[in-house]
Amino acid sequence: MKIWLTMLVAAVSLNLTANDLELDHSLAYKLTESLTVEVGARIAGSSADERAVVWAEKNFAALGYDKVWREPFKMPFWQRGAASLTVSAPFQQSFVVSALGGSIATPALGIDSNVIMFASLAELKKADPSQVKGKIVFINKSMQKDKEGNFYSEVVGARSQGAIEAAKLGAKAIIIRSVGTSLNRFAHTGIMRYSDKVARIPAAAISVPDAIQLEKMLALQPNLTLRLTMQNKLPGTVTSHNVIAEITGRTKPEEIVLISAHLDSWDQGTGALDDAAGVGLVMAVGALIKQQGQPERTIRVVLFGNEEGGLLGAKAYAAKHANNLHNHVFASESDFGADRIWRLDSGVGKNSLAFIAELQKKLAHLDISLGNNDAYGGPDVSVLKALGVPVVTLLQDGTDYFDYHHTANDTFDKVNPDALEQNLSAWLITTKAVANSDIDLRK
Amino acid sequence: MKIWLTMLVAAVSLNLTANDLELDHSLAYKLTESLTVEVGARIAGSSADERAVVWAEKNFAALGYDKVWREPFKMPFWQRGAASLTVSAPFQQSFVVSALGGSIATPALGIDSNVIMFASLAELKKADPSQVKGKIVFINKSMQKDKEGNFYSEVVGARSQGAIEAAKLGAKAIIIRSVGTSLNRFAHTGIMRYSDKVARIPAAAISVPDAIQLEKMLALQPNLTLRLTMQNKLPGTVTSHNVIAEITGRTKPEEIVLISAHLDSWDQGTGALDDAAGVGLVMAVGALIKQQGQPERTIRVVLFGNEEGGLLGAKAYAAKHANNLHNHVFASESDFGADRIWRLDSGVGKNSLAFIAELQKKLAHLDISLGNNDAYGGPDVSVLKALGVPVVTLLQDGTDYFDYHHTANDTFDKVNPDALEQNLSAWLITTKAVANSDIDLRK
Repeated sequence: MKIWLTMLVAAVSLNLTANDLELDHSLAYKLTESLTVEVGARIAGSSADERAVVWAEKNFAALGYDKVWREPFKMPFWQRGAASLTVSAPFQQSFVVSALGGSIATPALGIDSNVIMFASLAELKKADPSQVKGKIVFINKSMQKDKEGNFYSEVVGARSQGAIEAAKLGAKAIIIRSVGTSLNRFAHTGIMRYSDKVARIPAAAISVPDAIQLEKMLALQPNLTLRLTMQNKLPGTVTSHNVIAEITGRTKPEEIVLISAHLDSWDQGTGALDDAAGVGLVMAVGALIKQQGQPERTIRVVLFGNEEGGLLGAKAYAAKHANNLHNHVFASESDFGADRIWRLDSGVGKNSLAFIAELQKKLAHLDISLGNNDAYGGPDVSVLKALGVPVVTLLQDGTDYFDYHHTANDTFDKVNPDALEQNLSAWLITTKAVANSDIDLRK
Repeated sequence: MKIWLTMLVAAVSLNLTANDLELDHSLAYKLTESLTVEVGARIAGSSADERAVVWAEKNFAALGYDKVWREPFKMPFWQRGAASLTVSAPFQQSFVVSALGGSIATPALGIDSNVIMFASLAELKKADPSQVKGKIVFINKSMQKDKEGNFYSEVVGARSQGAIEAAKLGAKAIIIRSVGTSLNRFAHTGIMRYSDKVARIPAAAISVPDAIQLEKMLALQPNLTLRLTMQNKLPGTVTSHNVIAEITGRTKPEEIVLISAHLDSWDQGTGALDDAAGVGLVMAVGALIKQQGQPERTIRVVLFGNEEGGLLGAKAYAAKHANNLHNHVFASESDFGADRIWRLDSGVGKNSLAFIAELQKKLAHLDISLGNNDAYGGPDVSVLKALGVPVVTLLQDGTDYFDYHHTANDTFDKVNPDALEQNLSAWLITTKAVANSDIDLRK
């Protein structure tokens, strides 16, 4: 019955358009706008996250997807509270500060302490504990712009591991220079980690201009005192969801071509670049392909929950579908902004590289070159790759991505509709090529 | 005695350097850095404003100025409190909002109301009161970039007069799209006005991305409700100061060449572009000229207090020095950021235009062209111009100025040292030309 209905809808849709050029390529842009305007910031586990889940289900259905469902998973909920960071004598100024995701609160009256600055996490690790004990650690590592965002991995350790390393040396708290590439005065949040082996200390980021300012102050007055207050809460375990929708395959419905993005965002911007644009793209891909007729394989669009908190939705998906991952013939994720695609990387079997090379030829008119076979497929999809699922990455130009990433400034106005259309074209061509082939990318 | 000491210092200084090229043109940059790092935000009437006054006195003295003093004036003190603007059903989101300077607070629980959007202040003025009564007015006028900042005057009326016009029509509050030219998510503050003839209503600005977002929301749901809360305080009358320093003229000490900037800033950034850079420039000018020998006329550097609140320091100066304005042979102010000077405008007597033309020739190697004779000299100096003091304006390139103006993002890292050096060169040449001539610019 279900299959019959699907086929009927497909037949009707087939009459609508004949080829890609006639499709409405503004669909990704419109979906991105809708998610950011109608839902906005949607940190995992919040009521906004739940509204995003409802939004996704509703829009998948409206776009004509054959199946739509949600899959629950449990997660620890973290809630940002008010934060402040000030310096008193001799300068008496306030900094722009943001708690890092997962950070504990400070005592209500805050933490007052001297500061010790390090050029990097590596320098902190080498420090003499007697220099650090009882102080606020400040890691002041800057980040450079790069098309591939390669510097992120060099810098982000201060955010993710800084609290552990600082606590090992007896620090009271840690503040980091934002992991970001602009001089605009936004503090970049992002997930941080604790270890059960050392004390949990509060962790926060200050904006790049504030880091520059604090460095100048410390040069004038190394003994200055900072006061950090943060009111974050960890209310406990809640349920969030992956939202999944399918365009059922015509001849090989059991073979799954998985395209994805993450539905959650950080809580200060409206998560336009990270990752409403990805959501808009992959939701549009399935709908636009279906307009042209049912694909041979099933296209499964997964909007992962709680990517930001540590790929929790992806891990839940992998666990739930463990027995069916052999049927996942392909996976990819869009989670690097909304700019143009410029390179195709793959993570496939050697025998499939000819297929990837042919795919690149179909993308060449979009100025997309062929990259390497080391792709990880995207943050969430990397969990599936580790379990043997073949992946590709359509690399977005990330030059400006870390200007906005994890800030209040990640808003819809930053999305360039022309770039998003090019991006969508690349996703359509790639997804169709795999969904309408019988290639075994594992080989 | 005083004169003798002055001459001695001048003679010693003469040995240090021989001409402009050998002077340390980084001085303006260093002073800008010092004011923003050591004092930071300094809204008029605050303790930070008082620290800025002390900073200025100390640095004028250290730079070898012959006389340094402060002149008090009374002013109403306005203090920003916490502010929030949220929309509930169906969107449940928060906006980035900033109280406009001088705005009253809302009731503690805030103002909940429907919204009516206008494209401009002019459109608001034409509105039917029955459409506005009981609502929050939203003026959504955008601002374009421009080298001269010409669009500011077209847009700023919404900020300065909006509360009066909205109150006339019975509005409960007014929010405006920020008077700014960037898509970064900063709300631009700035002074607003009330009238004794209509009710005082709270007034705030939202960032440009938030204005775009609110417009989109209103298109989907015209009946949405906003909640605005602001906790501003008006503690009463306090004393602020103009800080004044002089390099005494060698042969015509009674003739005053006034160069100026304003010492106060808004309270959210560190007031680097507005107007620490101006302060650094004019403080450097007097010091560097003195290094080359005492000028013929007296160079008076005035750091006006409370420019932002309505030129209160300038008005106090004009009142206090009313009987001596005939001895003010020249006035100019630097208050348009820290970018390069590109044009020389004057506001002088017809017979002096040849002198101005000669001056432009001395500036031509800095790519500075000759403009018109309609200069107002700068915001504070416009008060003196209205009383007959001749002025010039060294026009700074203001293309990016309104990206940062009156936001938390106005910080020292935005100052380009190369541009500031060019700027300083133009100020040195101009000030020396007037101070070492006997031109009567009134004629």
